Amino acid sequence: MQQDRPKPILKLRRLGIDTYKEAVIYMREDCHVCRAEGFEVQTRVLVSLNGQSMIATLNMIRDGLLKPGEAALSEYAWAKLGAKDGDDIHVSHAPPVHSLSHMRSKIYGNELQGEQLQSIVDDIVAGYYSDIHVSSFLTACAGGRLNEQEIVHLTRAMVDSGDRLDWGQDLVVDKHCVGGLPGNRTTPIVVAIVAAHGLIMPKTSSRAITSPAGTADTMEVLTTVDLDVPLMRKVVEQEQGCVVWGGSVSLSPADDLLIRVEKALDLDSEGQLVASVLSKKIAAGSSHVLIDMPVGPTAKIRSMDMAEDLSRYLEQTGAAMGVGVRVHTSDGSQPVGRGIGPALEARDLVAVLQNTKDAPQDLRERALDLAGHILEFSSDVKNGQGRILAAELLNSGKAWAKFQAICDAQGGMKDIPSAKYTHVIEADKAGQVTAIDNRRIARVAKLAGAPADKVAGVDLHTPVGTHLEKGAPLFTVHAHSPGELDYALGYLEEQDGIIDIEGEPS
Amino acid sequence: MQQDRPKPILKLRRLGIDTYKEAVIYMREDCHVCRAEGFEVQTRVLVSLNGQSMIATLNMIRDGLLKPGEAALSEYAWAKLGAKDGDDIHVSHAPPVHSLSHMRSKIYGNELQGEQLQSIVDDIVAGYYSDIHVSSFLTACAGGRLNEQEIVHLTRAMVDSGDRLDWGQDLVVDKHCVGGLPGNRTTPIVVAIVAAHGLIMPKTSSRAITSPAGTADTMEVLTTVDLDVPLMRKVVEQEQGCVVWGGSVSLSPADDLLIRVEKALDLDSEGQLVASVLSKKIAAGSSHVLIDMPVGPTAKIRSMDMAEDLSRYLEQTGAAMGVGVRVHTSDGSQPVGRGIGPALEARDLVAVLQNTKDAPQDLRERALDLAGHILEFSSDVKNGQGRILAAELLNSGKAWAKFQAICDAQGGMKDIPSAKYTHVIEADKAGQVTAIDNRRIARVAKLAGAPADKVAGVDLHTPVGTHLEKGAPLFTVHAHSPGELDYALGYLEEQDGIIDIEGEPS
Repeated sequence: MQQDRPKPILKLRRLGIDTYKEAVIYMREDCHVCRAEGFEVQTRVLVSLNGQSMIATLNMIRDGLLKPGEAALSEYAWAKLGAKDGDDIHVSHAPPVHSLSHMRSKIYGNELQGEQLQSIVDDIVAGYYSDIHVSSFLTACAGGRLNEQEIVHLTRAMVDSGDRLDWGQDLVVDKHCVGGLPGNRTTPIVVAIVAAHGLIMPKTSSRAITSPAGTADTMEVLTTVDLDVPLMRKVVEQEQGCVVWGGSVSLSPADDLLIRVEKALDLDSEGQLVASVLSKKIAAGSSHVLIDMPVGPTAKIRSMDMAEDLSRYLEQTGAAMGVGVRVHTSDGSQPVGRGIGPALEARDLVAVLQNTKDAPQDLRERALDLAGHILEFSSDVKNGQGRILAAELLNSGKAWAKFQAICDAQGGMKDIPSAKYTHVIEADKAGQVTAIDNRRIARVAKLAGAPADKVAGVDLHTPVGTHLEKGAPLFTVHAHSPGELDYALGYLEEQDGIIDIEGEPS
Repeated sequence: MQQDRPKPILKLRRLGIDTYKEAVIYMREDCHVCRAEGFEVQTRVLVSLNGQSMIATLNMIRDGLLKPGEAALSEYAWAKLGAKDGDDIHVSHAPPVHSLSHMRSKIYGNELQGEQLQSIVDDIVAGYYSDIHVSSFLTACAGGRLNEQEIVHLTRAMVDSGDRLDWGQDLVVDKHCVGGLPGNRTTPIVVAIVAAHGLIMPKTSSRAITSPAGTADTMEVLTTVDLDVPLMRKVVEQEQGCVVWGGSVSLSPADDLLIRVEKALDLDSEGQLVASVLSKKIAAGSSHVLIDMPVGPTAKIRSMDMAEDLSRYLEQTGAAMGVGVRVHTSDGSQPVGRGIGPALEARDLVAVLQNTKDAPQDLRERALDLAGHILEFSSDVKNGQGRILAAELLNSGKAWAKFQAICDAQGGMKDIPSAKYTHVIEADKAGQVTAIDNRRIARVAKLAGAPADKVAGVDLHTPVGTHLEKGAPLFTVHAHSPGELDYALGYLEEQDGIIDIEGEPS
């Protein structure tokens, strides 16, 4: 029987189709391998080349794009397998993915054990899950369906899915902001202050998931952030701190794959959030982590009850993993600083570091609070003295000097670009600004193109409390293209009360 | 500002890429529309042509597959928009899909209202959900997370998503088997018996979701099943009954889109199951529905508790929708008939209809039970008399004559094909067969290529209770290709005790 069987070998041809991180194989409808193996469209197949294998989803080609005996791969699969034009690939049925039965068990409400979560995470990193499977896993774990033990297991599985850094120091500090507050770009300021005092703060930051900018997006406006581990190590050895993109140092690689689908779902789940945050920090070699948690009606964390639950999960998971976690709740009732979007936020944080007269004071105060707490992780800083020390480091210009040195070490400091298309939104009545809707103002910034377009976003002119006349500028929408500006303005036309103004008695 | 903006118009070119039912648009990386509109890979974009629009996922083309100013569509999107080579398409940002916020609300455990579920289902049918979104919706509703009221709302939304047939009769009967029992292909026999008595039974059946064969797959071995509504109507007017594929008459089109992703997830959820079954029946114009529910340790419904819960949901939802639903539980401890897989099951059901000596008696008895219950929906059949009447219709040859007439009306009766590659599995010891694992024997049939390959499957030789010698044939694996036969045999080598044999005292 075996000798009749055609060899499942095909010659690769590059078609250059970019599907982002979805592995797709393109085969002719009449391909002998499809016939022999019984493949159909959307079959998950195992593709092997150069001793490496990955699972890809089959798309069929009906027309003449491929010659008989040829196959193509999406750019992601092409790069991952190190393919070249004319390479011979071997194609076979994908083996059963056993961890999917654990995923289904979770859907039915069962608790997962450590090895079950480990096998799910390992299979995701190995590329055995399609987007459909990843989406189902994320949904099954969302809405509070992971218990404390499962969150610890998931965190450990995600740490173990990639490299783990070791700085050879007992005290390695880190911070993370549980998002949802537009413009709250304290991290680069905090790193500059803390590193200026000499603490080790090797900061890896993420790009935006569902917000208009992540710290990595903002920092990329000012310097290079996609450093590999040896380069990151060099920067930290020289300057004590850095701000790099976590994705390029392959810490917790599972997280990057999960975040991609979370983004499409616009979903942040509690357990996933804890595992995502702490796995990155632990893999980055941190011993102490400060969590900034803004609380407000339109922030991600809407109430003190939610904040307490999440804090408990973060602290417990940290304790189980041997890492000190401290949560600092802060006012999340309105955006921080003025800019929302990578370039506009970069402008604000540089102003704070430079101590310019018009620097946003709220951003400055928040950065000092956080830097103060982190400085207190150090045995040479007494409790209650951290903030005073932080203010000295900032006011003296030491933090700004340190920031410039870090940017230089990461690849050189860049000028901040500005948007080609802008549009000013004016107050439709006189009065006092009483509230700003974080979610909807963030949405405007995203529709305008942030974070993909660095210059896109919203520049706020009137924080809560501002008294203004009718026709006074409320905020300016910035966009890189007219299409996106239109899109953001179209959304604004449908909205009412993103900024609440209460009329004053005349 | 507007006059600077290049028109987002591109010329279509057919690349012939079949992605099944996922709408994909292929655009050049350097395309002016991508630049102007700020599109990236995986952006969801609105594609308009001929006054029709759909949302598609963007894949970028890096090489020369497309000329400047050109774009391509996946075959599904091409067909849905009625595209021709050289057509001008308009491409813009997809509008926000508001119903996704209802989906997220469900993920967080909130109850959904009727209009919320309706908007989700409508958006899925309109093509506004990507596979990632559909997967999340299905997962959020699985594991018992839809309550009774939500199941009714979902059922109604799915009925309203497509056409609804009206037969101009008070009594229109139907049946459905809640799957999980390999070889249980009673439907064509039941339709033949019931229609022979003159009741209207316009049966629409599904293809397999997670099993080796659905009734539509099996029936397709014997005649055409992809009839449109006018043709189906003609068959029923002439012969009172039919067995057609539900997907081709666009009843409950949402269901077909959901089933595609359920299949990839290998997930059957309770609420989704009730909505799927009843929406098809109600859309097909049924007044009375009999549900066959096999219960057994390796059937889909494993216990009487599960059966009672599901029966309650089915009966309550039927009552809320004005349809009489009766549930008949049956023995689900082993496969029915001998064949598992479309062609092998077709062989079995024809043997029953022809009253041949070696026809599988268990299949015959089950078909008579069900036909008897359905006949009792009719006012001219007394309670308790249905089964006797059913046996008369089958024994007299009237049912077989009716079945042939139905096949002729649907497009002519076909010969049953047989597999090119077979392999006999033998007993490794003497003894009595005490149990057969439905799930794993079905898995073997699927790995052998069923249902895509009609001839593929498993032919069982030894039902529970059979006494056999060592080396006696247990079952034969049938496959269309050597690759699939190898694959099924490879799985079998890893398995133990799919068929339990208890040794007899010597």
